[in-house]
Amino acid sequence: MSLLVVGSVAFDALESPYGKVDRALGGAATYFAVAASFFTHVNLVGIVGDDFTEIDAQIFRGRTIDVEGLERTTGKTFFWSGVYSENLNERTTLVTDLNVFADFKPKLPEKYRSSKYVFLANIAPDLQRDVLKQVKGTPKLVALDTMNYWIERTNSELRETLRHVDILVINDSETRQLSSEHNLLRAAKHIFKMGPSTLVVKRGEYGAMMVDKRGVFCVPAFPLEEPHDPTGAGDSFAGGFMGYLASAGKANDLALRRAMVYGSVMGSFAVEKFGLDRLRALKKPEITARARHFYKMTQFTL
Amino acid sequence: MSLLVVGSVAFDALESPYGKVDRALGGAATYFAVAASFFTHVNLVGIVGDDFTEIDAQIFRGRTIDVEGLERTTGKTFFWSGVYSENLNERTTLVTDLNVFADFKPKLPEKYRSSKYVFLANIAPDLQRDVLKQVKGTPKLVALDTMNYWIERTNSELRETLRHVDILVINDSETRQLSSEHNLLRAAKHIFKMGPSTLVVKRGEYGAMMVDKRGVFCVPAFPLEEPHDPTGAGDSFAGGFMGYLASAGKANDLALRRAMVYGSVMGSFAVEKFGLDRLRALKKPEITARARHFYKMTQFTL
Repeated sequence: MSLLVVGSVAFDALESPYGKVDRALGGAATYFAVAASFFTHVNLVGIVGDDFTEIDAQIFRGRTIDVEGLERTTGKTFFWSGVYSENLNERTTLVTDLNVFADFKPKLPEKYRSSKYVFLANIAPDLQRDVLKQVKGTPKLVALDTMNYWIERTNSELRETLRHVDILVINDSETRQLSSEHNLLRAAKHIFKMGPSTLVVKRGEYGAMMVDKRGVFCVPAFPLEEPHDPTGAGDSFAGGFMGYLASAGKANDLALRRAMVYGSVMGSFAVEKFGLDRLRALKKPEITARARHFYKMTQFTL
Repeated sequence: MSLLVVGSVAFDALESPYGKVDRALGGAATYFAVAASFFTHVNLVGIVGDDFTEIDAQIFRGRTIDVEGLERTTGKTFFWSGVYSENLNERTTLVTDLNVFADFKPKLPEKYRSSKYVFLANIAPDLQRDVLKQVKGTPKLVALDTMNYWIERTNSELRETLRHVDILVINDSETRQLSSEHNLLRAAKHIFKMGPSTLVVKRGEYGAMMVDKRGVFCVPAFPLEEPHDPTGAGDSFAGGFMGYLASAGKANDLALRRAMVYGSVMGSFAVEKFGLDRLRALKKPEITARARHFYKMTQFTL
């Protein structure tokens, strides 16, 4: 079933101990859409400037990604620049230029409005809600990502948006900040009162944890000997997670567990090379093989 | 089969946001022996002073723990004092008094010398090797724990001891320090060259990871809403891990995976209350139930 995503399409300048790029295509919606397109049809909503070329746009071609909702305008595309520490565990943001994103008013093409699965990537909570309002009827599943910036500066807007969200997909420090609670189980209880019935906590090299009323499900991160660039790992996780759910057409416990695994699979590929390089070259059988690897890595009998 | 452990029996003074105790029975060998005794017979080697009372000794009574190897001497028992941070993630050591442990020369009772499973808890590498030498023939399985103190100050002695070890059971910072390698997969390769063929990395609230030539196995930590005291969690993990292996009498992939789960189960109980309080009151059916809980928390189909 159709999966709608709204979020940033961006150019990133990154540096890690493994190398440096000055202008890599990136952005949450880009990583998400590419990752999700291995599983389902994706409707992309975002904005780019006139520096976004035909070559850049090729990332979406030949995939099941509709870009009618990717607005093109005069000005520069969102730009982010950051440096990763020696062990890739810390990231320093050097530059965030919103550019054309500053005045973005998302407008859904008519054919997007019947999307049943919606992912609100990390942008201003007001914009997230604005997109959600344009979706006809009640979607089957709405998931949302956010970050410390919005939790701190637009907390009440975020709270309002969260009332309409089924699954919150954030990292552990965001979970703690949003709930004012260090313990993740107690944090989940706070967050359930805000609207979402499922919390997915992304924990980087430690994997991901899902909490809902049925309990907890954990999946490890795929151990890599040479991770190159963590940029987009969380968005690729979300893409695999939501892409799988949309393709399954259901969100029961079994489907959610598989979605967690496919999310982790896509996140693990994203970090193997710089920017979108690994996802760009990825083939479906590699996804299947890695999911089996996750199975081997976690299964036991009693 | 019989499981031999050598390590500290100690008194701890601890403070966490959940409370404070001035003199709690503790020590690596104590936690290990109590945890392992739910699975197998344990031969304990250690030393205590004349402040170790009959009431203290009751922790070992009514369990399958042989204390003939627990030497009693004049002087004070090993004493450790520490304070945990608000979220229990950090620990500050206030006092370490070796006391009777300073001149400890472990001597194995004759009946201990045929032990087939050996756990060398965190003590000086020379003492660990000394104990190992007193075991007759080649044990089926030798596991070892150590810490930054020995890695820094007695590195060559530790390297010598590691040549005789099958399974190294340490935490992630120790893994990184011992191997001079941040990435845990690359760290494992370095460690395999030192002797052990299996590396078990304890990662606290993130669970545990086992690496051997077959690959990687991960188990999460049991999420608790109110962990009280992390003291002894790693030693209880090791007790569950080695206790299960000794009871199974084999260490194939299936058994090692189960051992990882039972290790995590025992570690999760240890942190629920102060000191040994939770393990002291624990019943076997609770262990079985929690192992099933770990199963529910991790299993999926593709």
